[in-house]
Amino acid sequence: MTGATRRHDPQLRGFASDNYSGVHPEVLEALQVANDGHQVSYGEDDYTAHLQVLFRRHFGEHADAYPVFNGTGANVVALQSVTDRWASVICTTTAHIHVDECGAPEKVGGLKLLPVPTPDGKLTPELIDREARGFDDEHRAQPQVVSLTQTTELGTAYTPDEVRAVCEHAHRLGMRVHVDGSRLSNAAVTLGVPFREFTTDLGVDVLSFGGTKNGLLLGEVVVVLSPEAARGLPYVRKSMMQLASKMRFLSVQFDALLSGDLWRRNAAHANAMATRLADGVRGLPGLTVTQQVQANAVFAVLPREVTARLQEKFRFYTWDEHTGEVRWMCSFDTTEDDVDAFVAAIRAELLPASGSG
Amino acid sequence: MTGATRRHDPQLRGFASDNYSGVHPEVLEALQVANDGHQVSYGEDDYTAHLQVLFRRHFGEHADAYPVFNGTGANVVALQSVTDRWASVICTTTAHIHVDECGAPEKVGGLKLLPVPTPDGKLTPELIDREARGFDDEHRAQPQVVSLTQTTELGTAYTPDEVRAVCEHAHRLGMRVHVDGSRLSNAAVTLGVPFREFTTDLGVDVLSFGGTKNGLLLGEVVVVLSPEAARGLPYVRKSMMQLASKMRFLSVQFDALLSGDLWRRNAAHANAMATRLADGVRGLPGLTVTQQVQANAVFAVLPREVTARLQEKFRFYTWDEHTGEVRWMCSFDTTEDDVDAFVAAIRAELLPASGSG
Amino acid sequence: MTGATRRHDPQLRGFASDNYSGVHPEVLEALQVANDGHQVSYGEDDYTAHLQVLFRRHFGEHADAYPVFNGTGANVVALQSVTDRWASVICTTTAHIHVDECGAPEKVGGLKLLPVPTPDGKLTPELIDREARGFDDEHRAQPQVVSLTQTTELGTAYTPDEVRAVCEHAHRLGMRVHVDGSRLSNAAVTLGVPFREFTTDLGVDVLSFGGTKNGLLLGEVVVVLSPEAARGLPYVRKSMMQLASKMRFLSVQFDALLSGDLWRRNAAHANAMATRLADGVRGLPGLTVTQQVQANAVFAVLPREVTARLQEKFRFYTWDEHTGEVRWMCSFDTTEDDVDAFVAAIRAELLPASGSG
Amino acid sequence: MTGATRRHDPQLRGFASDNYSGVHPEVLEALQVANDGHQVSYGEDDYTAHLQVLFRRHFGEHADAYPVFNGTGANVVALQSVTDRWASVICTTTAHIHVDECGAPEKVGGLKLLPVPTPDGKLTPELIDREARGFDDEHRAQPQVVSLTQTTELGTAYTPDEVRAVCEHAHRLGMRVHVDGSRLSNAAVTLGVPFREFTTDLGVDVLSFGGTKNGLLLGEVVVVLSPEAARGLPYVRKSMMQLASKMRFLSVQFDALLSGDLWRRNAAHANAMATRLADGVRGLPGLTVTQQVQANAVFAVLPREVTARLQEKFRFYTWDEHTGEVRWMCSFDTTEDDVDAFVAAIRAELLPASGSG
Repeated sequence: MTGATRRHDPQLRGFASDNYSGVHPEVLEALQVANDGHQVSYGEDDYTAHLQVLFRRHFGEHADAYPVFNGTGANVVALQSVTDRWASVICTTTAHIHVDECGAPEKVGGLKLLPVPTPDGKLTPELIDREARGFDDEHRAQPQVVSLTQTTELGTAYTPDEVRAVCEHAHRLGMRVHVDGSRLSNAAVTLGVPFREFTTDLGVDVLSFGGTKNGLLLGEVVVVLSPEAARGLPYVRKSMMQLASKMRFLSVQFDALLSGDLWRRNAAHANAMATRLADGVRGLPGLTVTQQVQANAVFAVLPREVTARLQEKFRFYTWDEHTGEVRWMCSFDTTEDDVDAFVAAIRAELLPASGSG
Repeated sequence: MTGATRRHDPQLRGFASDNYSGVHPEVLEALQVANDGHQVSYGEDDYTAHLQVLFRRHFGEHADAYPVFNGTGANVVALQSVTDRWASVICTTTAHIHVDECGAPEKVGGLKLLPVPTPDGKLTPELIDREARGFDDEHRAQPQVVSLTQTTELGTAYTPDEVRAVCEHAHRLGMRVHVDGSRLSNAAVTLGVPFREFTTDLGVDVLSFGGTKNGLLLGEVVVVLSPEAARGLPYVRKSMMQLASKMRFLSVQFDALLSGDLWRRNAAHANAMATRLADGVRGLPGLTVTQQVQANAVFAVLPREVTARLQEKFRFYTWDEHTGEVRWMCSFDTTEDDVDAFVAAIRAELLPASGSG
Repeated sequence: MTGATRRHDPQLRGFASDNYSGVHPEVLEALQVANDGHQVSYGEDDYTAHLQVLFRRHFGEHADAYPVFNGTGANVVALQSVTDRWASVICTTTAHIHVDECGAPEKVGGLKLLPVPTPDGKLTPELIDREARGFDDEHRAQPQVVSLTQTTELGTAYTPDEVRAVCEHAHRLGMRVHVDGSRLSNAAVTLGVPFREFTTDLGVDVLSFGGTKNGLLLGEVVVVLSPEAARGLPYVRKSMMQLASKMRFLSVQFDALLSGDLWRRNAAHANAMATRLADGVRGLPGLTVTQQVQANAVFAVLPREVTARLQEKFRFYTWDEHTGEVRWMCSFDTTEDDVDAFVAAIRAELLPASGSG
Repeated sequence: MTGATRRHDPQLRGFASDNYSGVHPEVLEALQVANDGHQVSYGEDDYTAHLQVLFRRHFGEHADAYPVFNGTGANVVALQSVTDRWASVICTTTAHIHVDECGAPEKVGGLKLLPVPTPDGKLTPELIDREARGFDDEHRAQPQVVSLTQTTELGTAYTPDEVRAVCEHAHRLGMRVHVDGSRLSNAAVTLGVPFREFTTDLGVDVLSFGGTKNGLLLGEVVVVLSPEAARGLPYVRKSMMQLASKMRFLSVQFDALLSGDLWRRNAAHANAMATRLADGVRGLPGLTVTQQVQANAVFAVLPREVTARLQEKFRFYTWDEHTGEVRWMCSFDTTEDDVDAFVAAIRAELLPASGSG
């Protein structure tokens, strides 16, 4: 019996973020599985050993997996591992590392970011070239890595061909490729290909593999795909304060996720809910879906007063204060009823009163 | 049913570290209590709100609590919050921040450490004065904070009078006091006084409150006791990559720990096991217990070949390669049988064969 | 007699940069004036004391002057002095701090930059608003300072009204204003107003005052105009490795520059030479002067093959590899003959052969 | 004619620091030699090209020389160039990098220091071993470099044998050796051997070569002696804000110093003055010379009230407030009269009144 008391209403749900959701029951069970007795701390436990097996199964035989606490930590550790002190990182202006990490890449990682605007959250060789210059110029922090987000912060997905083009271009210029994959499972589902076929096999050098947004309690993994690219990762992880002592409890969650198909079930469901939501509102008068819905996010523009009224009943965020664009996120635990109720509320706002008659 | 499989032998236990242990069952239950439905991420959930109540109950009405992932994170966030960019930190040469954090205070916190040797892991006003100088000298990183560890890395505990003397001295010199309290519960038990009576009430400004080593899955809390001393903590925590998205699952563990007496039960048991161990070996020929046993650690010197043989059966660490001193840690889940078996093995090594007859 | 030997051809000159030039003779003399005997190091000398008088004369009675080595150092020290650890800096995409300092603001200053594209190198309230958001959002490095360059990296100058508008807007949002004034003297000349009237009096909080590009051997000064805005500057300067031991030799150069009108003579001459150059080439077929010529720089687009041939005889840089835009800089020591010879060469390239008949 | 006015009394001299002195006349002349005309900035000038020749002459054919502004900058750039992000640096507790650089190595270099107490400012293999441990332990910032100071902050000099022993020991452990040589010329004089024979030839990997304290206006040089050991030095120098634009004026000073024997004349004179001073006071009642006088510094303990009275007439510093130990520094411009007057004043204080009869 625990002293902890339920203090929240578990019936409440919304479309604010996939990290508003809780933990998938199979993941909670996994914590119990790993409990009891003593395990060597800091990653020399049996679950972290197995983590290597799992990640090599999914990402190829040369993959190395390093669990960390959160996505920001994964990104900074991954980027530091493939760069020198004098490096800069090419990313998009919407990248999580640029807009949502309170400057961690710069402040703790010593990384300079070179953000490039994009229409859809995706870098291309042409866009990379806006900042991929000044090599060998000591006045310029050296572009050493391109950081993609897959799926992107705008809910879009790079196709394998697009990833390949970026990797080939980056490598030709002597740069490495990092993928911020906090929603990589959503990408795998929408692309319909195994993980390695749109990462390792195309030349991605290092990635941040997300767990938290796909049903874990907490946990991300830095996965090194090009072992010759990354240096000193154990030291970087520790000095970046991302080394868990009771690491078995991070690693076992990925056992739950990746041993079977839980990763796919969760991501596929979240993606499907976003599609259902987009399908339900697309074409409504005054509402425009602004990005392709390829994962678990829907971006839309609708009248601000409608947004305001909807937010009284459904929690979600305005993405762009200037345009009024909103973001609706679905999660592994979003239900069809959740979506349908939300769609109904939006329709009630936007359709003529007679329309509901 | 989870895809995760038990991969370890839960019967194995040892004396290597209190973070080799797992999670207390009441803490695991608490995770379930907080699960289901949506909660606002990044700390605006009901459990983190209650965390404030809990910490104010234990540390006084002005305390502010900020959950973080691990002890290194707690220390660096806490120290940054009470210092300027040009600060230095006075600590002991055995301090965790100096010897066990891979330079995180310097590398991500930009903090200079001024380590002072001590006989027992404890700072005093006299020892502080070895480095508390050069105020107003621009060539010297300004000593702005004294960092104590309670209980210390050597298993000893500061008495309230000793903490008061350090706080008064530090404050007189314009410095703040930080307590690395990864084992603060063990200190509260051995001192037999409530938390606030040996921290807040004596002038401690900010502390790292430990959970992981006292039965949690993972989680520490930066507790600001002097609100006027700390600046920008939410930003510091985020930019230091210590902000959990599904924070309810950190906070609810502290609900399990601090709402009732679990914190005390766990710490008292671990302390008692260390005392039992020390009592069982003290006075054995060739073995010297080298520090007072005031918490859950026993330090001892014994013949290296004996250490080597013991380590074949019981996992523990050599603390000092030069002297052969070893450290034996007890945990909330150490049993009397564990201790007795270990004591018997030590006695069998050190006592004449006839002694076992 | 010195062991040093002249190794260069002093007749060579070009239009590459105002830091290709040497030292103004009056500045070299000043070094001799300050020589001999002992002076307290690190700024407690008679020349640095007088520096305060000079800067208060030019920037108002509350100005505080801190000599440093170079422009990058001045910028990073100035920006750190008015920001917290969790700050970001709004600047232009062409700002020296963003493109020419090898990431020093990020790597040694821990500052995150928020670069905004501009047509002419100048920020406006509207452009600032593209990044001036997310205040109180812990996920966003907090925008705490706007950094202008005056004159800009594109050779344009902010009018006093433009500076005022930026300052009022920034202050209204709780931000400070920094001016990178490596060419502030050129601005004063082109604007025709005293320094304080387009800095201090309009609300600029801190500036980097340039000396090197206006005839000094080396030396810049961080000038704090809002003393309540800047914190710990002596410590920041020292820990940023910008504290000169024999500081009298930095300070006395500013005595030579600012006691009389040398600063104005040098800047006015450089500006005039740029105007002469622009006037000489404007309207030539195939050549477009791309920016207003308000200081000592001329930006132009001309055929790449012409650029290539000109660079064989006159040293200058291509500014934008994509467009072929070039930059021609004039210096205090650029002569009318230098300009006329260059203009003649350009004309010979661009005008029909008969045109020169 | 310059606008700068002489504001100091050039007759004043003292024993406070070798950076209270001015610029040697031959160095001032050198500045004139390098002046006039245009030279490529940032080190692509004829003087910096020749600098390479000079340093290879003195330090061997593989030496690479990188001028920087000051000693702190030289040390941090040098140490960064031979370390990874996760490195620590073994040094003495009296090292300039530890006590006099306001935390620059930690704060801008991200370096953790491991200071070791010494009796005389000199490291030995045994002393190094106190911190040379924990290799391959991710919890420990990896000891990657040993930093010596030559001559030491206590005025002592490592013999070539002592340097060799340190280098061999460090290399055996996989560490590099850095020499903080802000007074390396004083060491060369006292040892009586060419530079390379107590640096390059013994295994020193990188050094900070001092100019400022030996008669320059300002300027130090990072000299890489093991090219395979240092990485990215041009980028490190720039991002550490130590790249001079008009570099010819740094480099030509070293031309004056190193082309002939000015370096030796200056250092030999300063050393001789310190010896004269020590000889003049050694054995006086109540005064103890506390360190070997091997360079240009004398350390002594004498009654505090005597120190106080002497300081009214002669400027010098108390080195250790606890013991009353003082430091007397001589410079290239210290005269025999300066020394004799100082010795007379000390003698008058310490000898019985009849002694002066």
